[in-house]
Amino acid sequence: MMVIMKKGYSQAELDSLLSRLEEIGLSGHPIIGVEQTVVGVVGLVFPELKDELETMVGVDEVVRISKPYKLSGRELKPEDTIVNVNGVLVGGGSNVIIAGPCAVESEEQLMATAKAVKAAGAHMLRGGAFKPRTSPYSFRGLEEKGLQILAEARKETGLPVVTEVMSIPDIDVVARYADVLQIGARNAQNFNLLEEVGRSGKPVLLKRGLASRIEDWLLAAEYILAQGNRQVMLCERGIRTFETATRNTFDINAIPLVKKLSHLPVIADPSHGTGKWYLVEPVALASLVAGADGVIVEVHPNPDHALSDGAQSLTFENFEHLARSLAAIGQAVGRPVAGKQMAAAGG
Amino acid sequence: MMVIMKKGYSQAELDSLLSRLEEIGLSGHPIIGVEQTVVGVVGLVFPELKDELETMVGVDEVVRISKPYKLSGRELKPEDTIVNVNGVLVGGGSNVIIAGPCAVESEEQLMATAKAVKAAGAHMLRGGAFKPRTSPYSFRGLEEKGLQILAEARKETGLPVVTEVMSIPDIDVVARYADVLQIGARNAQNFNLLEEVGRSGKPVLLKRGLASRIEDWLLAAEYILAQGNRQVMLCERGIRTFETATRNTFDINAIPLVKKLSHLPVIADPSHGTGKWYLVEPVALASLVAGADGVIVEVHPNPDHALSDGAQSLTFENFEHLARSLAAIGQAVGRPVAGKQMAAAGG
Amino acid sequence: MMVIMKKGYSQAELDSLLSRLEEIGLSGHPIIGVEQTVVGVVGLVFPELKDELETMVGVDEVVRISKPYKLSGRELKPEDTIVNVNGVLVGGGSNVIIAGPCAVESEEQLMATAKAVKAAGAHMLRGGAFKPRTSPYSFRGLEEKGLQILAEARKETGLPVVTEVMSIPDIDVVARYADVLQIGARNAQNFNLLEEVGRSGKPVLLKRGLASRIEDWLLAAEYILAQGNRQVMLCERGIRTFETATRNTFDINAIPLVKKLSHLPVIADPSHGTGKWYLVEPVALASLVAGADGVIVEVHPNPDHALSDGAQSLTFENFEHLARSLAAIGQAVGRPVAGKQMAAAGG
Amino acid sequence: MMVIMKKGYSQAELDSLLSRLEEIGLSGHPIIGVEQTVVGVVGLVFPELKDELETMVGVDEVVRISKPYKLSGRELKPEDTIVNVNGVLVGGGSNVIIAGPCAVESEEQLMATAKAVKAAGAHMLRGGAFKPRTSPYSFRGLEEKGLQILAEARKETGLPVVTEVMSIPDIDVVARYADVLQIGARNAQNFNLLEEVGRSGKPVLLKRGLASRIEDWLLAAEYILAQGNRQVMLCERGIRTFETATRNTFDINAIPLVKKLSHLPVIADPSHGTGKWYLVEPVALASLVAGADGVIVEVHPNPDHALSDGAQSLTFENFEHLARSLAAIGQAVGRPVAGKQMAAAGG
Repeated sequence: MMVIMKKGYSQAELDSLLSRLEEIGLSGHPIIGVEQTVVGVVGLVFPELKDELETMVGVDEVVRISKPYKLSGRELKPEDTIVNVNGVLVGGGSNVIIAGPCAVESEEQLMATAKAVKAAGAHMLRGGAFKPRTSPYSFRGLEEKGLQILAEARKETGLPVVTEVMSIPDIDVVARYADVLQIGARNAQNFNLLEEVGRSGKPVLLKRGLASRIEDWLLAAEYILAQGNRQVMLCERGIRTFETATRNTFDINAIPLVKKLSHLPVIADPSHGTGKWYLVEPVALASLVAGADGVIVEVHPNPDHALSDGAQSLTFENFEHLARSLAAIGQAVGRPVAGKQMAAAGG
Repeated sequence: MMVIMKKGYSQAELDSLLSRLEEIGLSGHPIIGVEQTVVGVVGLVFPELKDELETMVGVDEVVRISKPYKLSGRELKPEDTIVNVNGVLVGGGSNVIIAGPCAVESEEQLMATAKAVKAAGAHMLRGGAFKPRTSPYSFRGLEEKGLQILAEARKETGLPVVTEVMSIPDIDVVARYADVLQIGARNAQNFNLLEEVGRSGKPVLLKRGLASRIEDWLLAAEYILAQGNRQVMLCERGIRTFETATRNTFDINAIPLVKKLSHLPVIADPSHGTGKWYLVEPVALASLVAGADGVIVEVHPNPDHALSDGAQSLTFENFEHLARSLAAIGQAVGRPVAGKQMAAAGG
Repeated sequence: MMVIMKKGYSQAELDSLLSRLEEIGLSGHPIIGVEQTVVGVVGLVFPELKDELETMVGVDEVVRISKPYKLSGRELKPEDTIVNVNGVLVGGGSNVIIAGPCAVESEEQLMATAKAVKAAGAHMLRGGAFKPRTSPYSFRGLEEKGLQILAEARKETGLPVVTEVMSIPDIDVVARYADVLQIGARNAQNFNLLEEVGRSGKPVLLKRGLASRIEDWLLAAEYILAQGNRQVMLCERGIRTFETATRNTFDINAIPLVKKLSHLPVIADPSHGTGKWYLVEPVALASLVAGADGVIVEVHPNPDHALSDGAQSLTFENFEHLARSLAAIGQAVGRPVAGKQMAAAGG
Repeated sequence: MMVIMKKGYSQAELDSLLSRLEEIGLSGHPIIGVEQTVVGVVGLVFPELKDELETMVGVDEVVRISKPYKLSGRELKPEDTIVNVNGVLVGGGSNVIIAGPCAVESEEQLMATAKAVKAAGAHMLRGGAFKPRTSPYSFRGLEEKGLQILAEARKETGLPVVTEVMSIPDIDVVARYADVLQIGARNAQNFNLLEEVGRSGKPVLLKRGLASRIEDWLLAAEYILAQGNRQVMLCERGIRTFETATRNTFDINAIPLVKKLSHLPVIADPSHGTGKWYLVEPVALASLVAGADGVIVEVHPNPDHALSDGAQSLTFENFEHLARSLAAIGQAVGRPVAGKQMAAAGG
């Protein structure tokens, strides 16, 4: 962080700045030039500090230089993090496929889907038991019953289970059944929940918030990492913009940029990122070549009758097509889809 | 909701639609024209239903007509809701002022602020004990100690206390000390938290999310109302847009629009809505004439040294000026600021 | 502008930076500290320079300090600009009302509207003869015939005429009839058009673009001012955001902020800023108390049959109500609406 | 378009609606149900009609069904348009590369770049002679001198030339030298310019506006097509969002969606879409697999010294790498880059 002093600042103003920095555990290093004085700030700054220092008398402007995140950044840890989910390795150029219905609706529905996606090449199973819905009148999931069904499907197929946890009191029960705890977009800055899933020690799939800048997203990951849980996967699922032709705007730029800034794996969610099933495959493939370590997609035996997100769900047939395409493109870019052995090893 | 059938749809497709509607507790009423058939849907629809029905064979497009919110809408309850916070009445054209520091930092800081804002005409005291921060390394509040200080300030000044609750496990302790539970922008769609504050029975100040459309915001209120808690105040605090010259874009349109759609009181937060202290007064006054039932603003004895949000905090002097301006403009538009008696009655 | 050098930069890299700055007419002033070196850049920088310098070897980051606009900023000209439109003075705390239909449709329609808005207190008449429309199949204006009708209405009522010019070849004919040339939101960064209206010497009403940051908007004004035309009025008309309940998001923050940054008058357009007639009055009043120097609103004898923008147009009755409210609020904030004499003097 | 009547509407209100529709060349077809009446509207509707009809008494809501664009849509012309630029065919699954500097700065700079990109596999040469710049103080291009240099480079390399035209008076001179007229993002809704480039008969590369929804963009194309010019290529170059880590947010969703809605070729511009040279290759490759018919990228012999957009320009070496990657991925997805013969044929 650099603090640019106003022309004609007084020594007392500079001293006041330096002592304020000291108070909060930082140190200031004045660079005094002929026309301008700039103070370099050393130490772990936080985003709000800029605003605070700019209100001080004698200060003209404050400029952030160093990144506010630490544990999620490549500066501290240059090499890729590989998250190990019961033997399925995510990160470092993996090409992992997570598939399943938006919500677990019944044993039949989930089991049929789990078998179909396994057969087509998926490495993990997704499915919501606790569903965040914009309206309290929408279907909100089978809760623990849904988790039990997911666990049965894992037993049957060997696929590790990814499912959302929405609140602190639910962490225990979700962690009992799930292999990966998913934090949804609407909880992307629910900081208490982030810390608690951090403490759970379970691998976490952290979705980007609808209005999260990349920096916000990495700082959200920081909350989990700071609890000593390094098993974090970031998930780009589109941001909210003025475009209404798609449900969200999938931020393809974020994939290579986050891979450059952070060592954490990045998973693409083209189902939520587009909201239209016929855009899922092109955007999934685009994500892979842009550097994503895998995709998470919604699949339903009968999307016409899905209790949620039917419009963006793939049929079994469409999913098979996607899995084949991911394998083919992955081959071309030197990132083959992990074989069945690996997935099986996760059982 | 209207379902527009494709040209050349089959009777079987129409029947399938009608039986699907029945399954989920709705009824479909076909309107068969010469060139086009449209099915009117009666019953409580939910936002995701549009997507689902659009995936059905024979369906061309689905159009939402009725609003998805119910308890928060004026259709069900045309008259204004007046929330009573220990004698301070909010809603129905009130001109209420809530003021205090972003975070409670110490007894001295809070007590000085509480007395100053009380003297200048504030009706309630705000102050954060649990602070949501984008970075885990920022100051995060004094927690229960902060709540105790707030309660003391209430005792001293008679001002009811508004403070944020960030997670379900904290509701009990916060509710023990606070008069109003505030839900922050980053928890605006933390549905479990909304339901639990609904169950607490305490008045709630519900901030709009950074990416919440007005409909999302009213549906969030619906989660609280559906628990039988009708004491909900909505708070516009700016949305996230491409403009970077201000911290957020305060959505002034939302104020008269929400007042038209909903019976709930609307409070304006120009401190977060602008991020710059010198914009707080003009935007506060603008909100009042646009129809807000009150404002919530940040005030700090020494904004230069505030541990959070210093750049947007008013000094005591600036706050006095604002309070006088609100009174003058309120007088001109027939909405005088409530007198000291009323605020005192809240003690 | 400050250039922050990388740790361990070489002298050759610093020299290369300094000579590059010299090449483009700027001078660099190194501030060499113990841990960090920063180069202050003096001279008129342009926005793209940051990007360019950041690609240079040895450069870590470039930080803009000075504003990129010059003629539109208060630094160069602290006192308010007052634009004189045939005797109607705009700026410096004026409370001016510009009203009329979105498009001139017929002599009857315009004349009736002009007389009605004059009687109710308007100071200028607006009306489109050349209409920008998102679709080539929409009604696009009466063109020169429309301008003639506007000129007749001015003769009849004494109200100066504000009308849009969409392209360079049309400037001559529009300038022949109009008192103020309006630049629409979709031409807000049509730089050639801006320069040519600058050369015309006519007062200009410059709308903010749908995606213009405040800085972009002031730089657009700079194009006009740089041609020696200082008669520029800025017009806030809403920006495009994710909110779909209103046509645009009216940026109320921009009004006091632009008044602080720039000496130019600011006019609010709540008709386009909201897209709903019933939001026009509250947002107009809000703009006035936030510091706008006037409003421009759409009025139509029969909004049900307006060929464009009917949904946001006021009836004569609604406009009278608005004009009375603006006068009352203006009185309360010490900014009375200019009297009839002044408007008449514009004839 | 469907007009939904209010419950309890009167026959007179329905008649008034029907006669209004007739007046503007449309026909209304009432569908009268037991509980609700809906009027289907047949004919070419325009976007603003919805707003207009919604203000009519007796009308509850108006719903758009048919797309407002016609000539750019697949409904009218299902097969892909192939634009022929001097023998280089764009569209229908092509994998075309357009490369060159942001601005033509000198003969040396352009000629070196043209030869380098030709050697590496580019099919067309880009370079700005007239530059739109947010500030009037930025470098604004060599104008006709720049066009002459581009023409020389075409002579030397055989590469057709793509260059921007910013205003109607410049069309003649630009069309004399260029093979493709580019419309920049800031002129994306400069409707007069669109019509005039339509009349020029030259192939047009139409960039998406910073705030253009997909529908706006296709309607902008409609302005060109309606002049009888069918040689239109659409260019996705990112939209403006709240994300500040990248210059724009490249809308990858738009590529497959526009390909589905429209028969026109789509070109991706990852240089402007990201603003960072190191994101250009991943986003270019992503665009190709998502369905783009080609890419346009900025290349500069010395990006450190580029007079504009240096930060997003590729070096010759980076461009060669990109061209090889595009060829490899193109091969894998059955869309090989066109050979040298084809490009040569364009000379």
